[in-house]
Amino acid sequence: MKIYFITGNKNKFAEVKHMLPEIEQLELDLEEIQEFDAHKVIQAKIQEAFKHHKSGDAFIIEDTSLYLDGLNGLPGPLIKWFMQRLKVEGIFDIVEKIGNFGAEAKTIIGYAESPEKIHFFEGSVKGKIVPPSGPTNFGWDPIFKPIGSEKTFQQMAKEEKNVMSMRRIAVEKLKEFLEKS
Amino acid sequence: MKIYFITGNKNKFAEVKHMLPEIEQLELDLEEIQEFDAHKVIQAKIQEAFKHHKSGDAFIIEDTSLYLDGLNGLPGPLIKWFMQRLKVEGIFDIVEKIGNFGAEAKTIIGYAESPEKIHFFEGSVKGKIVPPSGPTNFGWDPIFKPIGSEKTFQQMAKEEKNVMSMRRIAVEKLKEFLEKS
Repeated sequence: MKIYFITGNKNKFAEVKHMLPEIEQLELDLEEIQEFDAHKVIQAKIQEAFKHHKSGDAFIIEDTSLYLDGLNGLPGPLIKWFMQRLKVEGIFDIVEKIGNFGAEAKTIIGYAESPEKIHFFEGSVKGKIVPPSGPTNFGWDPIFKPIGSEKTFQQMAKEEKNVMSMRRIAVEKLKEFLEKS
Repeated sequence: MKIYFITGNKNKFAEVKHMLPEIEQLELDLEEIQEFDAHKVIQAKIQEAFKHHKSGDAFIIEDTSLYLDGLNGLPGPLIKWFMQRLKVEGIFDIVEKIGNFGAEAKTIIGYAESPEKIHFFEGSVKGKIVPPSGPTNFGWDPIFKPIGSEKTFQQMAKEEKNVMSMRRIAVEKLKEFLEKS
């Protein structure tokens, strides 16, 4: 059995591969359904992946989203459209006007050996939305500062970010699951 | 050839049927893709509809969305999640804090006799977001007041609303198209 991490993002793949050397990258252009619940987004993608791919293999799908306290959790998995319409500057502006800077960065990983049974693993980091700390071409890293840190994700070295990354927490839970099973 | 308006919303169907008596209602549970561009949402639904239904018939799919100036057009077709997370009170609160009350209500209708060729018809109404004018169980009608009106959509009688409805404008364009073809 091979384990495929379905993603077109090389950086994400490298980050996860570093912790789970057995995985392979698979680029599949899977439609993202319109849902606020990331579990449902992942479930729809995994079910589509099994339609296109022979069984006997396992799939990993990952969703990393930003949840803003001042918007009762929005955008969550809809972050792509907030980034497209508002960019990090616009998101900071709105958060500042609302006056609630609290945020949560959350990674949810779905792992499935068959479309019927998906195992979910979650990692999350609480933080604050701050003015963009630098170049804004790497998602929302420039405006997210984890609680207890003096730096935004964008200002951290890769290793430094990984230590407190919501993705690392989720991948560690998956790794533990795979070792046990 | 039959023309099916695919919707689960009886009120929407009645409103459109009143102008286009030849249409029939079809309830199909079509997945909504995650997109800001309503044309793409409609296109995906129409293509899915043709997979499930015999050819020889035509389909109408309608998207009515609220675009907020202070959020650079968001939520648009993502309005469902804003309503779910924030409700009309929360949307008004955010708009008030941002300090930009401008909004646009837009209906886009897709009409297709085959999945390859979709005709689009659009109607839109500019307005302002105001404090909820009443019961909030009818979408965002209680917070949308068209420019030039003293009433929100929620405060208008049905006939009064239809006169200035973005849906009526779009349906009239479709009607004209059907009469010519």
